[in-house]
Amino acid sequence: MSVPPAEPLTVPSLPDALARAARSVEAALDTLLPRPEGPEARLAEAMRYATLGGGKRMRGFLAVESAGLFAVAPTCAARVGAAIEMLHAYSLIHDDLPAMDDDDLRRGKPSCHRAFDEATAILAGDALQTRAFEVLAEPDTHSDPLARCELVAGLAAAAGARGMVGGQMIDMLAEGRPLDTAEVSRLQALKTGRLIQFSAESGAILGRAGSAQRHLLAAYGRDLGAAFQIADDLLDAEGTTEETGKTAGKDAAAGKATMVAVLGPERARAHALMLAGQAAEHLAGFGPRAAPLRALAEFVVTRRS
Amino acid sequence: MSVPPAEPLTVPSLPDALARAARSVEAALDTLLPRPEGPEARLAEAMRYATLGGGKRMRGFLAVESAGLFAVAPTCAARVGAAIEMLHAYSLIHDDLPAMDDDDLRRGKPSCHRAFDEATAILAGDALQTRAFEVLAEPDTHSDPLARCELVAGLAAAAGARGMVGGQMIDMLAEGRPLDTAEVSRLQALKTGRLIQFSAESGAILGRAGSAQRHLLAAYGRDLGAAFQIADDLLDAEGTTEETGKTAGKDAAAGKATMVAVLGPERARAHALMLAGQAAEHLAGFGPRAAPLRALAEFVVTRRS
Repeated sequence: MSVPPAEPLTVPSLPDALARAARSVEAALDTLLPRPEGPEARLAEAMRYATLGGGKRMRGFLAVESAGLFAVAPTCAARVGAAIEMLHAYSLIHDDLPAMDDDDLRRGKPSCHRAFDEATAILAGDALQTRAFEVLAEPDTHSDPLARCELVAGLAAAAGARGMVGGQMIDMLAEGRPLDTAEVSRLQALKTGRLIQFSAESGAILGRAGSAQRHLLAAYGRDLGAAFQIADDLLDAEGTTEETGKTAGKDAAAGKATMVAVLGPERARAHALMLAGQAAEHLAGFGPRAAPLRALAEFVVTRRS
Repeated sequence: MSVPPAEPLTVPSLPDALARAARSVEAALDTLLPRPEGPEARLAEAMRYATLGGGKRMRGFLAVESAGLFAVAPTCAARVGAAIEMLHAYSLIHDDLPAMDDDDLRRGKPSCHRAFDEATAILAGDALQTRAFEVLAEPDTHSDPLARCELVAGLAAAAGARGMVGGQMIDMLAEGRPLDTAEVSRLQALKTGRLIQFSAESGAILGRAGSAQRHLLAAYGRDLGAAFQIADDLLDAEGTTEETGKTAGKDAAAGKATMVAVLGPERARAHALMLAGQAAEHLAGFGPRAAPLRALAEFVVTRRS
């Protein structure tokens, strides 16, 4: 694979890079989400409520930073980051519904169906998913329609019945029924891993990178996603509601299948650290420009909220 | 616009054309929907239950017949018809949920959340939407990625916050509150009209037709969709549950905003007949190949179920 040029390069710290990506993705979301207008205004309000002004924007950061490895125009990268965050926001709205995880809190504020109502929340999630694919298909996302088709197909594969939604189905069916380590690992790979992997890959699609570089970014995303999920489950098990902005201890109460439940906290933490190190190693050949992505792998397993 | 060639042409009757299109779309759906496999098998079962073996496939017919005007490969047209039917099936699953229209019957059998459960129905709808966009973005749908992007963006515009889902939001908010004729007309245009319009337009996108022909097909679809919705509401008001396969009289009981409610059945029927005639006229210049599409316009306002 190609080695980045040796010119002097100022690599931002991870907090700076995270903040910069979050700002650009947030600005793109604000532009791309519908405005509350007409008799259907409540729908746009709910879409914006559930998407804007919250979350760490990790998926948006992965899209922006991976695109940055290939000199992609920042506006294009921000659109892809925004589309992925819309897809993620839709999944959170539907996961929180009474018929699903029945959660009243999300990102430290009432979940969408609590702030609005169930029907509005279902529809807001539906319309966010639609808008995510629409944004990717629009010419402003990339001048080459083949790249746009690959983004649409890639996001769909990560999000659909063989990805995120399939994982959520397994999760619902597994409540109270013991899964083994391999089953939990596949569940998590589908439920959260595939979308995180696609986020890291999306920059390679935008940058028309070769398959070797695309595969390295996908491998990074896969290991990062698995590490992130274990860390998230450890926080749920050990953190407080104030720290995480979500109802604490819900997973154990609901008999959720997590790596923490099957391995115990200590082995789960060790496994997450191993995965995070492996994730960073995939990007060793990308040079200093990939430093924020490598730093993220360390961050996800050491964060406290 | 171009005039079709004068060679002898066997134009099938509407019932034959409807049956042929339904068969090809059904076969495509069977191929394109996920198979029940693995621990998430229940999700694929629910997706297939709600999509296969039911419905008139009017939207699929519109895609197949409009593509037939431009010598599009039948397999490509069937894929687009299947994607639109998946999108439509997702909307019916979510509309029937307890938090929405709370309907126990759909196409003469238990609605998806009654046959499975609410969580499974929400997820099946979500994954059907995802799969619809994925199918359109895949290379088998069209050799030109620009056409695929236009299909994705067109379906998204018809289905999203400024289309079908926006219309559903207005519908939910309007229950029990009187709307005037213009408001009901816009509600119906968003809720069902835009997707029917896109179905008729999709053949022109697949066939890389000029904008004049695309606009005529869009105008046909717009008028057809409005006529269809009024006829559907008349059937709800006057038909029986056995005839329609849906719970009869639900609209009036729920205080739904329909053209039948604002105009009364007689004026609503006259308006539907006028729209159907107008729809057929838009296709006058397409010659005998468009006969089934013109016949459909008459059929939708005269059908009894």
